[in-house]
Amino acid sequence: MKFVSTVLLSALCMGAVAQEPKNVIMVVGDGMGPAYTTAYRYFADNKNTPLVELTVFDRMLVGMASTYPAQVSGYVTDSAAGATALATGVKSYNGAIAVDVDKKPVSTVLEWAKEHGLKTGVAVTSQINHATPAGYSAHNESRKNYNEIADSYFDDKVDNRFVLDVMLGGGWDYFIRDDRNLVAEFEGAGYQYVDKIADLSATDKNKPLLGLFADQGLNWSLDMPAKQRLQTLTQTAVKHLENDKGFFLLVEASQIDWAGHSNDVGAAMTEMRDLADTMTWLEQYVSEHPDTLVVLTADHSTGGFTIGANKIYRWEPQWLDNLKASPYAIAKQLMTAKNKSALAADLLGFSLNDEEKSMLDAIDTQDDELAYQTVKTLLDIRTNTGWTTGGHTGVDVPVYAIGPGSEKFRGMLNNTQVADNIFTLLGRE
Amino acid sequence: MKFVSTVLLSALCMGAVAQEPKNVIMVVGDGMGPAYTTAYRYFADNKNTPLVELTVFDRMLVGMASTYPAQVSGYVTDSAAGATALATGVKSYNGAIAVDVDKKPVSTVLEWAKEHGLKTGVAVTSQINHATPAGYSAHNESRKNYNEIADSYFDDKVDNRFVLDVMLGGGWDYFIRDDRNLVAEFEGAGYQYVDKIADLSATDKNKPLLGLFADQGLNWSLDMPAKQRLQTLTQTAVKHLENDKGFFLLVEASQIDWAGHSNDVGAAMTEMRDLADTMTWLEQYVSEHPDTLVVLTADHSTGGFTIGANKIYRWEPQWLDNLKASPYAIAKQLMTAKNKSALAADLLGFSLNDEEKSMLDAIDTQDDELAYQTVKTLLDIRTNTGWTTGGHTGVDVPVYAIGPGSEKFRGMLNNTQVADNIFTLLGRE
Repeated sequence: MKFVSTVLLSALCMGAVAQEPKNVIMVVGDGMGPAYTTAYRYFADNKNTPLVELTVFDRMLVGMASTYPAQVSGYVTDSAAGATALATGVKSYNGAIAVDVDKKPVSTVLEWAKEHGLKTGVAVTSQINHATPAGYSAHNESRKNYNEIADSYFDDKVDNRFVLDVMLGGGWDYFIRDDRNLVAEFEGAGYQYVDKIADLSATDKNKPLLGLFADQGLNWSLDMPAKQRLQTLTQTAVKHLENDKGFFLLVEASQIDWAGHSNDVGAAMTEMRDLADTMTWLEQYVSEHPDTLVVLTADHSTGGFTIGANKIYRWEPQWLDNLKASPYAIAKQLMTAKNKSALAADLLGFSLNDEEKSMLDAIDTQDDELAYQTVKTLLDIRTNTGWTTGGHTGVDVPVYAIGPGSEKFRGMLNNTQVADNIFTLLGRE
Repeated sequence: MKFVSTVLLSALCMGAVAQEPKNVIMVVGDGMGPAYTTAYRYFADNKNTPLVELTVFDRMLVGMASTYPAQVSGYVTDSAAGATALATGVKSYNGAIAVDVDKKPVSTVLEWAKEHGLKTGVAVTSQINHATPAGYSAHNESRKNYNEIADSYFDDKVDNRFVLDVMLGGGWDYFIRDDRNLVAEFEGAGYQYVDKIADLSATDKNKPLLGLFADQGLNWSLDMPAKQRLQTLTQTAVKHLENDKGFFLLVEASQIDWAGHSNDVGAAMTEMRDLADTMTWLEQYVSEHPDTLVVLTADHSTGGFTIGANKIYRWEPQWLDNLKASPYAIAKQLMTAKNKSALAADLLGFSLNDEEKSMLDAIDTQDDELAYQTVKTLLDIRTNTGWTTGGHTGVDVPVYAIGPGSEKFRGMLNNTQVADNIFTLLGRE
C-alpha cells in the first residue's frame, strides 16, 4: 500500500501536479450558443439507431460561461467585446479589439504566450483580421478598422518578433491592397505564403506561415471541395507550431455566427459539423499529446435560433442531410433555373411538396436575397426551426475543455475567467 | 504531516467517502432552458453597480442535460416524458407518466425512496397531479388523466403506505370532485389538510400533510400576497419530512413553463425569482444540513425565449422591475379602465410613450386574450425579448447540484442519468 501526504492530497485531487499545459489550443465557435451544440447532436444523430449518439461536444462539456460586455454596452455582446473578454480577461465595449473601456490596450493570452517563448498562431474561417482573431492578436478601438488591424499583424511586434507565427484563414482584401501588400512584406520577412488549402500539405513546418484563401471569409463549408476545411487549417497550424517550448493557437469556427446572422439552419449545422470534425481531431491530438490543453467556448449566441417553433413539438434536421450546396449557393442556381422544382429537389436532396413548389415561384433572376430567403424559409418550415433576430442574443454559452488544466473551466464562468485561467496556466501570477 | 493510502485517494478525490446523501431534494424548473437562467441574472442584476452579480444558479452550476424523449416522439419533449426521464431513468413518449413506450409502469426515484424507508413529498406551484409531480408519484398512460392520477395518490400504495407524505400545490378541481372527495379520504386516513398557504405554519409536522391552494395551478407569483410562495411550500415540506431515515422531496417551479407558453417575459422572470428565492433557502439548508443533496434542472425549455431580438443588441429587463401585478392581471384591469394609459403606467411602473399609449387603444372590454397580448407585446418591445413558439424547444438545459453526490451531475448528462444518479445515491445497485 502506498501513501501520499495529505498536504499533496488536494493538489493531486485538483490535478495540480504536472498540471500546466505546454500547449494551449483555444477554440471559439463564434455565435455557438447552446441551441447550436444541442441541434448538432440531433443533426448528427444516426436516425437508424434507437439511441441518440453523443457528440464530441458532449464528451468535453465542463460548464457554461456568461458573455455580457462592459456595462456601457448592456447585456448583449458583439464578437469584438466577446473576443476581448476571452483573450484578455477584461470586459470592454462592443466593437473593442483588446482595448478596455478607455480604449487602452490590454494584454492578450496570445501575446503573453509569445512573450514567454511559445509559438503562436490563428486558424479561422473568417478573414484572419476579423473580430475574434484580432481580439487575440491586435489592439484597436474598432473592429471595423480592418486595414489597421491587418497592418498591425506586421507592424506591431512582441519583443521584436511578429505577433503570429502561423496565420490561416481569409483576407486578401486586407492583406493585398493598392496601398500596401502585406503578403509581400511577410514573404520578405521570411514567411512562406500559400493561397490554396491544397497547398498547405507542401509547406515547410520550420518556417513561419501565412495562408490566405479568400477575399474575406472562406466559402461556406458546403461549397468547398474540402469539407473539413477548419480541421485542415487546424492540423496544419499545429504541425507548424509544435516546438519544445510549446504554442498557443487560436482556432475559430467563424461562420457558425454568420449562418446565425443569416438565419440559415443548413449552413449553421454544416458549419457546426466543420467544427465537430476539428474537435474530434483535437480530442485525438490531446490523447496523443497529453501536454496540450484544448478549450472550446462561444463568444455569444446568434440569431435566436430555436430547436422547434410555431407551437409544434418537432425538429427534423434530417432534411439537411443531403444538401449538395449551401442554401445561398442553391438559391443562386435557382435564380436562373428553367425547372426550379426539379433543381431544388436535386440540390436540397428531397422532393418538394406543392406548397414548397409554389414558394419557388417567388424567385426571379434579379433578387438574390429574395431567392436566399425563399430557400431558408423552406428549410425552416421543413425542419421547424425558429429565429428571433439577425443579431446576437445574451444566453450563456457552453464551455468545453480537455487536457491539463481543464478542470479550471468547470461550472459557471464569466467569459473573462477563460482568459484568467489561461493566463494562470501559462504562468502569470 | 498526515498520510492517506493511495487506494483511498481516488475515493477521497471523488468525494466518495460519506458520499451518500441522507436526504435528496430534486428541484425542477419546468421549461427553464438556459435563456431563462441567463436572463434571470440580468433581471436580478443591481444596475447601480458596475459588476453583474452572480445568482444562486451561477453558484450551483455543474453541467447540462439533454432532454429528448423516446425516438417515437422525436427530439422535442413534453413535460410528461421529461418528468418520466428525470424520475425513472427511462425515455418514453410525450404524454407518458412514469410508463415506458409500451405503457408499462417504471419505478421512480420517489417510489424507491419510499420503499427504502425515506419520507416523500412534492411541493409545486402547479396542481400536484400535473405532469412533473405525477411523473415522480404516479403511473399513467396519459398526463391528461388528471382524475386518475389524483386518485392514484390515494389508491396506489408503496409497501402498503401512501406514496406521498407531504403534498403541497394546487388541485381542488381534481381532489374535491362530485364523484370523489380525495381531501376527505386523505383526512380520514390521518392526513391534515390546509387550503391557505398562511395556515401552513400552524400544521403539525408529525402528521402527513395535504395542502391545496388553488383550483389548478397557484396564481402567478406576482399576484399572490406571499411573493415567495414556492419557498414557503418548500420550507414547510422539508420541515414535515425531516426524520432519522431521510427524505426525498420533489420541488417544482411549475409556472416558468406556463410563462414561456404564454410568451410572457414579466411572468417568466418573476417565476424565476420565486425559484431563485427557493434555491437560496435550499443553499442555506444544505450548508446547515450537509447530509442533503439538492439537484436542480429543467425538463426542457419553453417558448423559444431569447435575450434580445429584431437585430438589436439590447435586452432591458429593468422594465420588469416594478410590475405591480402579473401582465395578465394588468391586462384584465385595463379592459375596464377609463384612463388606460395612466393605469398601465401605474401597474407597469413606467410612463408610456405615445406609441405604447396607442397600443392600448386595441384593448376592449370583451377580449381578455387580446388585452393580455397587448401588454405582453408592449413588454417584449420595451425589453427587446424574442419568442419563437407557444410550445417547447429542444435546447439542452443547465444542471445544478450541491451537497453529497453533487459531483455525479458534472458535465454533460442525458436527462435519464439524473434519475440513474439518484437511484445510485439512494443505494440501488
